[in-house]
Amino acid sequence: MDTLARLERTIAERRSAADEGSYVASLQARGLPVMARKLGEEGVETVIAALSGSREDLVGESADLLFHLLVLLAEKGVPFSDVLNELERREGTSGLAEKAARGA
Amino acid sequence: MDTLARLERTIAERRSAADEGSYVASLQARGLPVMARKLGEEGVETVIAALSGSREDLVGESADLLFHLLVLLAEKGVPFSDVLNELERREGTSGLAEKAARGA
Amino acid sequence: MDTLARLERTIAERRSAADEGSYVASLQARGLPVMARKLGEEGVETVIAALSGSREDLVGESADLLFHLLVLLAEKGVPFSDVLNELERREGTSGLAEKAARGA
Amino acid sequence: MDTLARLERTIAERRSAADEGSYVASLQARGLPVMARKLGEEGVETVIAALSGSREDLVGESADLLFHLLVLLAEKGVPFSDVLNELERREGTSGLAEKAARGA
Repeated sequence: MDTLARLERTIAERRSAADEGSYVASLQARGLPVMARKLGEEGVETVIAALSGSREDLVGESADLLFHLLVLLAEKGVPFSDVLNELERREGTSGLAEKAARGA
Repeated sequence: MDTLARLERTIAERRSAADEGSYVASLQARGLPVMARKLGEEGVETVIAALSGSREDLVGESADLLFHLLVLLAEKGVPFSDVLNELERREGTSGLAEKAARGA
Repeated sequence: MDTLARLERTIAERRSAADEGSYVASLQARGLPVMARKLGEEGVETVIAALSGSREDLVGESADLLFHLLVLLAEKGVPFSDVLNELERREGTSGLAEKAARGA
Repeated sequence: MDTLARLERTIAERRSAADEGSYVASLQARGLPVMARKLGEEGVETVIAALSGSREDLVGESADLLFHLLVLLAEKGVPFSDVLNELERREGTSGLAEKAARGA
């Protein structure tokens, strides 16, 4: 499960290198609205893969979604661990209270 | 980083228990299109949080997005590790080839 | 086809009346990000209706999408006729050049 | 307001001609999930234009959204007038009942 931590670090490195040949750096150069658009589009594509695509499509789109989520969080200076901590906090409010906590 | 592995297991348990009081089980009962809709909506909400919300909004929406991604993958019988492996595979094709591999 | 012109006028009236009982006024009070979120969510729901829903679902979600588009345009002070003019302009660049004009 | 009726007819003609040079025919050839994806992506882009773009961006993305909605409806055999009738029906249930009817 260290994959995401490693990917987060790789994204941070590519951002600071501002390497023109890097997809991460090119997104960074295009700015926040483009990164947000990519995330939203990958959300749509994951929906469509789940409803109409193959298993491989779903795996690929889910990977794209996670990748662009990490890119967006990096741009906003939010460590991925903050998101994981939020998930922990919710579960920590106990399974029994899950639904109420999530505000179904 | 074991948070997501634990959450995946919790979701699987709540699915098999089909506990009425569980949000996961209620989504499962409503079916795949509802789970897909939730994922898509959380994608939109993450976009909006990134562009117009607070840091807390972005953390919360990102957590919702991950949660509903895990719910959707569970419904489709796709282990989250398959998605992580796909991310590894892409990065493994080396940073130099990153952009081409991703098909920017 | 005057339906949309009438609906646009109705939305403008409900906005200026700021009637608490009106859904339009309640959206207006909640602000632009909420209106944008509604539009994005209706986009997702229209996608899902097209792929997995009934004909009635698709009609209903398309109506919701149009309604929330008009609400969003009103908030931004953009007349719907500007959008129609843009569609005319594109078609006016002739069918032959359609694809290039749209930048497929 | 005849713009949308004309555009609907143009889309129908391009579908039946199956003209390779037509963007409409190329979408038709790629199938329903691609048309649905386009609609969803335009929804995301309209959201982003409303929150972070210029007035021209919003007009352009709204035009794209309408265009792809008409393409999707054509693929599903749903006349645009059915969507307009649904909007009429909702408004016809009177402004007073608007919120309840829409199920805010």
